[in-house]
Amino acid sequence: MNSNFIKVLNQQAASYTPIWLMRQAGRYLPEYRKVREKAGSFLNLCKNPQLATEVTLQPIKRFALDASIMFSDILVIPEAMGMHLYFNEGEGPKFSHPIKSTLDIDNLKVIEPEIDLAYVMQTIRNLKQELPRDIPLIGFSGSPWTLACYMIEGGSSKNYEQIKSWVYQHPQQLHILLEKISIAVADYLVAQIKAGVDTIMLFDSWGGVLTETAFQQFSHQYLSKVIERVKMSTPETNTPIIVFTKGGGVWLETLDKLDCNALGIDWTIDIGKARQQTNKILQGNLDPVILSVAKPKEIYSITKSIIESYKIANDGDLNGHIFNLGHGILPSANPDNVACLIDTVHELSKR
Amino acid sequence: MNSNFIKVLNQQAASYTPIWLMRQAGRYLPEYRKVREKAGSFLNLCKNPQLATEVTLQPIKRFALDASIMFSDILVIPEAMGMHLYFNEGEGPKFSHPIKSTLDIDNLKVIEPEIDLAYVMQTIRNLKQELPRDIPLIGFSGSPWTLACYMIEGGSSKNYEQIKSWVYQHPQQLHILLEKISIAVADYLVAQIKAGVDTIMLFDSWGGVLTETAFQQFSHQYLSKVIERVKMSTPETNTPIIVFTKGGGVWLETLDKLDCNALGIDWTIDIGKARQQTNKILQGNLDPVILSVAKPKEIYSITKSIIESYKIANDGDLNGHIFNLGHGILPSANPDNVACLIDTVHELSKR
Repeated sequence: MNSNFIKVLNQQAASYTPIWLMRQAGRYLPEYRKVREKAGSFLNLCKNPQLATEVTLQPIKRFALDASIMFSDILVIPEAMGMHLYFNEGEGPKFSHPIKSTLDIDNLKVIEPEIDLAYVMQTIRNLKQELPRDIPLIGFSGSPWTLACYMIEGGSSKNYEQIKSWVYQHPQQLHILLEKISIAVADYLVAQIKAGVDTIMLFDSWGGVLTETAFQQFSHQYLSKVIERVKMSTPETNTPIIVFTKGGGVWLETLDKLDCNALGIDWTIDIGKARQQTNKILQGNLDPVILSVAKPKEIYSITKSIIESYKIANDGDLNGHIFNLGHGILPSANPDNVACLIDTVHELSKR
Repeated sequence: MNSNFIKVLNQQAASYTPIWLMRQAGRYLPEYRKVREKAGSFLNLCKNPQLATEVTLQPIKRFALDASIMFSDILVIPEAMGMHLYFNEGEGPKFSHPIKSTLDIDNLKVIEPEIDLAYVMQTIRNLKQELPRDIPLIGFSGSPWTLACYMIEGGSSKNYEQIKSWVYQHPQQLHILLEKISIAVADYLVAQIKAGVDTIMLFDSWGGVLTETAFQQFSHQYLSKVIERVKMSTPETNTPIIVFTKGGGVWLETLDKLDCNALGIDWTIDIGKARQQTNKILQGNLDPVILSVAKPKEIYSITKSIIESYKIANDGDLNGHIFNLGHGILPSANPDNVACLIDTVHELSKR
């Protein structure tokens, strides 16, 4: 595949800095909102391969993006493990019966991704048919820690008191849960690779709420286990792996030890400083709010400053950087700004 | 004053590591909840010097804390500048008319702290009478950036889209607002020093939502201006200054440039690593949730690991560290755990 995105992940020279956006198939696009409405609910949309394929392709049709990410949600794994998931309009996802005991952990099903998450595999197969040949497809999963947060808190949380009471009071039981989730995550990612994704990404959205020690024990360790199991099960593919820990800028040295190809960084750390702390490919790191509140002129200058900061820290070389946001694009983002951002990245990074 | 807290702030050797807790006078204490109920509302409590004095003293009477912090709220400044503030039960503070235009900025009053915030000064004078002689009193203010966030967003925010639209679209007008707030903050802190506080602290609770460049321009710059104006107005007192930026662990080198004595750090960065990045006194950094969810045994071992991490990074010397939480204590904290934490810090850090 002649893709700058894949080239960068494989440490090869690219002809420009590739760009894609976390949550690029999403509510900021009117064509997405139309399909979302037709699907009836967010979960219906995830579970309908035809519609999930359609919304995945929407940003690819509209913009000159360098990669596609399958439309899905990180919580499909716990749902497949037997937890009842629901989405109320205007609220985040919720589990009706959060995990409260070791019995709840025992009751979690061991998933068979090809069966239990067949709809995701079908979406991937559709996409491999329909995507332009030079646009790679990214598969993904939540990290074990992030999924455990949702499964124990029952939804998003302010202080993570439920899961942290496991961290500090019942660490052994939490490790059993994380072990179980890690196997599910790894097997799910392996199935995605077998179905055809070109890259996988682990979203450690809530790793950043931990102390460094707890992060190493309860998130990093399981990211590592997932990666090991994926690599062991797919030795022939050598599929590149990206890990994104929101708030992980303070732990880049720890994250650098993971056996992955690239690290995503949020917008709070200067990418030049990040470059000095890890040898991994870096993915990031525009503040997503900028696409909602700024005008093309400002987008140009902020994008330029990120590219230049990277270049200076990387001895004048633009390779090794995948442009992205520092977190998912917001529903309030202006599609014209997205187009401007993509053009700007391509224009300013042409080798 | 024979105080280990003041000694550490002045870079002198202390006989043990001093400890106090952000929001130590608060809802986790039954005696606080009683007074809070009597006051009728949170704002009434802030504005009643007798009751504010009483709740400030409660944790000092109950625990072997090494410093006291006056009970108040960071939003009393915007309120004194003319913005209507209200607190609904169970919700955070809100402004009924958030700042939307330059006219709104023009309409903000220049405060005279001795008059407009007389109730705070009275609380300080009461406390200086009633506090034990060896317990220093900390005065405080929100940082200009953090106050501007509340004033423009109207309350707490998820993505800070309102204020970030000023950052990226109307930076000059935002600078005018931040300039105006900085003067109010500095004058307020000067009045607190004149009324008798022994130390001042700046809470930059929302600095961490910015990119590093924006942090330097919109928060750090004004922290610096506030400190300069405070120092110029009180050259004789040499009052120590503590600055706390939540999420500032990635910017310690930038924060190190501030002309303050100490930097507060949240729980996400290892204190030993922080020690290597700045020469300032460090204040922190236990995850506050631990006091809500752990038992004394775990509190002991986590506290020990923080003290030891600091000691190793500081060449075996415990001086230069003020123990605290990485953020305010939660309403769910167990007072017995607080007592255990304080004893543990004192016991493990005795020189």
